[in-house]
Amino acid sequence: MNLKRWLPCIGWAASYNRVTAGKDALAAVIVTLMLIPQSLAYAMLAGLPPITGLYASIAPLFLYAIFGSSRTLAVGPVAVISLMTAAALGPMFATGSSAYIGAAMLLAALSGVILLLMAVLRLGFLANFLSHPVISGFISASGLLIALSQLKHILGVKAEGQTVLQLLPSLAEQLPLVNMPTLLVGGVCLLFLQLARTRLKDLLLGLGLSSGWADSLTKTGPVLTIIVSVWVVTLFNLDSSGVRVVGRIPEGLPILQLPTMDWQLALQLLPAALLISLVGFVESVSVAQTLAAKRRERIDPDQELVGLGAANIAAAVSGGFPVTGGFSRSIVNFDAGARTPMAGILTAIGIAFTALFFTPLFHNLPHAVLAATIIVAVLSLVDFGSLKRTWRFSKQDFIAQAATMFGVLFLGVEIGIILGVSLSLLLFLWRTSRPHSAVVGQLPGSEHFRNIERFSVVQSEFVVSLRVDESLYFPNARYLEERITQLMVEYPECKHLVLMCSGVNLIDASALDSLEAIAERLTAAGIQLHLSEVKGPVMDQLHRSDFLQHFGGHVFVSQYAAMQALDSASVGRAAQG
Amino acid sequence: MNLKRWLPCIGWAASYNRVTAGKDALAAVIVTLMLIPQSLAYAMLAGLPPITGLYASIAPLFLYAIFGSSRTLAVGPVAVISLMTAAALGPMFATGSSAYIGAAMLLAALSGVILLLMAVLRLGFLANFLSHPVISGFISASGLLIALSQLKHILGVKAEGQTVLQLLPSLAEQLPLVNMPTLLVGGVCLLFLQLARTRLKDLLLGLGLSSGWADSLTKTGPVLTIIVSVWVVTLFNLDSSGVRVVGRIPEGLPILQLPTMDWQLALQLLPAALLISLVGFVESVSVAQTLAAKRRERIDPDQELVGLGAANIAAAVSGGFPVTGGFSRSIVNFDAGARTPMAGILTAIGIAFTALFFTPLFHNLPHAVLAATIIVAVLSLVDFGSLKRTWRFSKQDFIAQAATMFGVLFLGVEIGIILGVSLSLLLFLWRTSRPHSAVVGQLPGSEHFRNIERFSVVQSEFVVSLRVDESLYFPNARYLEERITQLMVEYPECKHLVLMCSGVNLIDASALDSLEAIAERLTAAGIQLHLSEVKGPVMDQLHRSDFLQHFGGHVFVSQYAAMQALDSASVGRAAQG
Repeated sequence: MNLKRWLPCIGWAASYNRVTAGKDALAAVIVTLMLIPQSLAYAMLAGLPPITGLYASIAPLFLYAIFGSSRTLAVGPVAVISLMTAAALGPMFATGSSAYIGAAMLLAALSGVILLLMAVLRLGFLANFLSHPVISGFISASGLLIALSQLKHILGVKAEGQTVLQLLPSLAEQLPLVNMPTLLVGGVCLLFLQLARTRLKDLLLGLGLSSGWADSLTKTGPVLTIIVSVWVVTLFNLDSSGVRVVGRIPEGLPILQLPTMDWQLALQLLPAALLISLVGFVESVSVAQTLAAKRRERIDPDQELVGLGAANIAAAVSGGFPVTGGFSRSIVNFDAGARTPMAGILTAIGIAFTALFFTPLFHNLPHAVLAATIIVAVLSLVDFGSLKRTWRFSKQDFIAQAATMFGVLFLGVEIGIILGVSLSLLLFLWRTSRPHSAVVGQLPGSEHFRNIERFSVVQSEFVVSLRVDESLYFPNARYLEERITQLMVEYPECKHLVLMCSGVNLIDASALDSLEAIAERLTAAGIQLHLSEVKGPVMDQLHRSDFLQHFGGHVFVSQYAAMQALDSASVGRAAQG
Repeated sequence: MNLKRWLPCIGWAASYNRVTAGKDALAAVIVTLMLIPQSLAYAMLAGLPPITGLYASIAPLFLYAIFGSSRTLAVGPVAVISLMTAAALGPMFATGSSAYIGAAMLLAALSGVILLLMAVLRLGFLANFLSHPVISGFISASGLLIALSQLKHILGVKAEGQTVLQLLPSLAEQLPLVNMPTLLVGGVCLLFLQLARTRLKDLLLGLGLSSGWADSLTKTGPVLTIIVSVWVVTLFNLDSSGVRVVGRIPEGLPILQLPTMDWQLALQLLPAALLISLVGFVESVSVAQTLAAKRRERIDPDQELVGLGAANIAAAVSGGFPVTGGFSRSIVNFDAGARTPMAGILTAIGIAFTALFFTPLFHNLPHAVLAATIIVAVLSLVDFGSLKRTWRFSKQDFIAQAATMFGVLFLGVEIGIILGVSLSLLLFLWRTSRPHSAVVGQLPGSEHFRNIERFSVVQSEFVVSLRVDESLYFPNARYLEERITQLMVEYPECKHLVLMCSGVNLIDASALDSLEAIAERLTAAGIQLHLSEVKGPVMDQLHRSDFLQHFGGHVFVSQYAAMQALDSASVGRAAQG
């Protein structure tokens, strides 16, 4: 049972049969056709030779199939992680150099180790602190930035830069040097891919195809584009007219080897690896969760850390770069009928065959076509409407989202995400440190007590009751002290203060100290503190301190019991109705 | 009204009269007598010439009296902040050098600016994140570390180091060089001061003195020790026998001047300044709050930031070092009858007179006596019992406290506090990310719904109800998704899922996205999501999104209404009693 938890593959392998195999195989064929151009393109985006994209789509898929808990997640290179890889390595090494390639492998290794450590230390919850507005802002801004960074390939020029402020002037400067054949090829591909994405399905449906087939064929748009463009380049010998092509890709499978262990470099790459791990994990888990729910399956986020960690280590030792679960790819896998991670293994075999035998076919593949594939894919992720929706819904979330987008576009990918996470954490802590609390009074004719500001209730002259709608822990411990000091000034006649604890699920050591300080200060001012409606677990906890012995007040089962004991008039008020 | 908020002195100055003046003057005399040895000693602890201690007790007291909101807080050098000053500057400059003195002034300036910025940006809540166990662990460990660092003065040897691991071997190495006359003077003072602290009051009460006078006289123990020791050193000419004395202290008031603005250095000192500001603020506010509550007065934490910020800037421009509100000193001030911050101004005048005319009296004051003053004061702060109490009360708080103590003693003061704060924040975030939630069922014979694990309740076959006892925001958004995915697996017959929101005070954008994802996944699995008992403000918030239009379910006023609508059998169960 325990082994099955750590090796989810045992679960599905036991009942694997021919029917499932057929479904998995079909899905694998479709995903392989989709993954080939994607892996070549994302390798280019990451600043790496195209072959590394294929390498990153073989071993990682095997490992995820063994250790991952999602049945249909398709792992491999993805746009955002490739951009983050380029952002981390670009300023340090010459693009495509062997030092660059080695550092990308090291980055994958670090990311794998971090994910596995998070699994062992149960730190998966850390991913929660990438709030949705931050993630959404990050992905939109990254999409724009990626599209902008790929524009040079469509124009056939050289432009450098990590932010909008660097890329735009660099592109503008190069504008006179535009290579027309490249622009033609790139422009036509861009147009075709965009139409394929938005219109092709309707067209195929119009031709009488089933929705499933129309969907699957639509997804082969990129492969079709590649085949046609390679053919056109070869036919018209376009590479001699300045259209840059992929060139010779070494055939064969990656050689397994450990990345060079440069500790100095590892330390430098650590922050980037941390961000890549977190972002990759969050993206992947949300896709996996969405797909699992559709079939009432479950994924285990801690096990996902193991699966993605193993996949990244596999990428590191087989000449790849950081990988994670891809959004569109996983949906295609799911829709094509994949039932188990065997589909992933079959996909990996498909890519391995490609790397072994078909790489010469990609010699004449233009960079512009790969760039067009990327641009169309990432622009679909850009969602400025989200900014507006967030603004309408919550100003605080908007601040975090806008800061993330601004940071990514103008200051750099890593700074952007750090800015967003810090701001959302800071705003969260600020909100947490002032919990909702209300002075309550008795609803005449009842034993109920309600907020005096919202209901027409009766208060006792000598007894003040405060309800706190939050657990008491250190972020709000001081708030409680301040609130009660304030109450003491507001109610000079007060002799008893009842803290109504119906909303308190936990009291930590800081809050206990605060309660003790409060009780002491109240006593010094001639007021007695009492508690009411304390939940069972909280009461158990208080018994583990000596607070109850020496705070001098009572713990009442209900707020009404407290008022009965402290203010006899309340009984009359309850009967009055 | 607004001016009075920013200048609290207007409040008390308006009604100032002769009676209050008399009380303030008496308190000022007692505090001055206490502050003279303390300020000399803490300057030594901070690695600074004794006179800077007096300087740090003049201008800052004036400024706090004008801007501070506490009526009885006594500001000046304190042990923990002096230790932190030494820890920050010790590794960078030669102790007592002019560069060291300049850097101490710069540290005070930075700390002042940080506190004022926190006031303007309303960041006072950040101090909440120094949880009580961390603060308490920090103070106990600091006390031990300070006592150990002062031992060299009692032994008359030279020992260096910032941590226990550095100090102990250094002291052991110097043991053969102990100066016997110094040890004698230091040892006797240590013994006398300890007895004065623990026994003198009882003795004086036995002699028939009133409790107030006995208390005040007890507090003059340090001054008495100083007078007698100076007399003894002079009489027996002990400084020629190797007893190190304070020596010539320049007479006169500090010259007002800006600290040298070395930006490079300022950047280096920034982390230390940040920690000093936070620790100083937390210590000071808790003392101020305790004292204010005793007289049903109120302090304003944001205004305290202004008062302490101004005090530190005053320290910076008058040759001092970082200051804050002192614990024992403020209690003495309060007990001696101080009514307004005028007592602080009078104390400052007393110290100014001392600096002008009486410094020659301190020429023969032995370092060993100052060290004894410090040791007795800080050992009273060491509280290892707290560790045990925390262990019993909460394991998580214990981890943070123990880590802080370990860090301070063995890794360094700053590392210790950073370790403690990080751990308590991490544990807090972990706890927050898994809020309390319960599947609820109907109490037979009632319209109430309770946790199925604690009560004997009835559940519907097709309707599952989940109550979440926490606001929904990004740290727990994913938890909710996981919890509900799990429920879908546990209840395969489920057709309706009701989310009971009685404990939800807020829904942020991340939680809204999660709710949308949940609703979508449930729909895909043939289950309809509903909400019940949504609070007014949360409902307003949901209306600002389009969730309510397209989630497809209903929002029920009460859980019972939800069950009535979704499962007709519930009406029967309610009537059954």
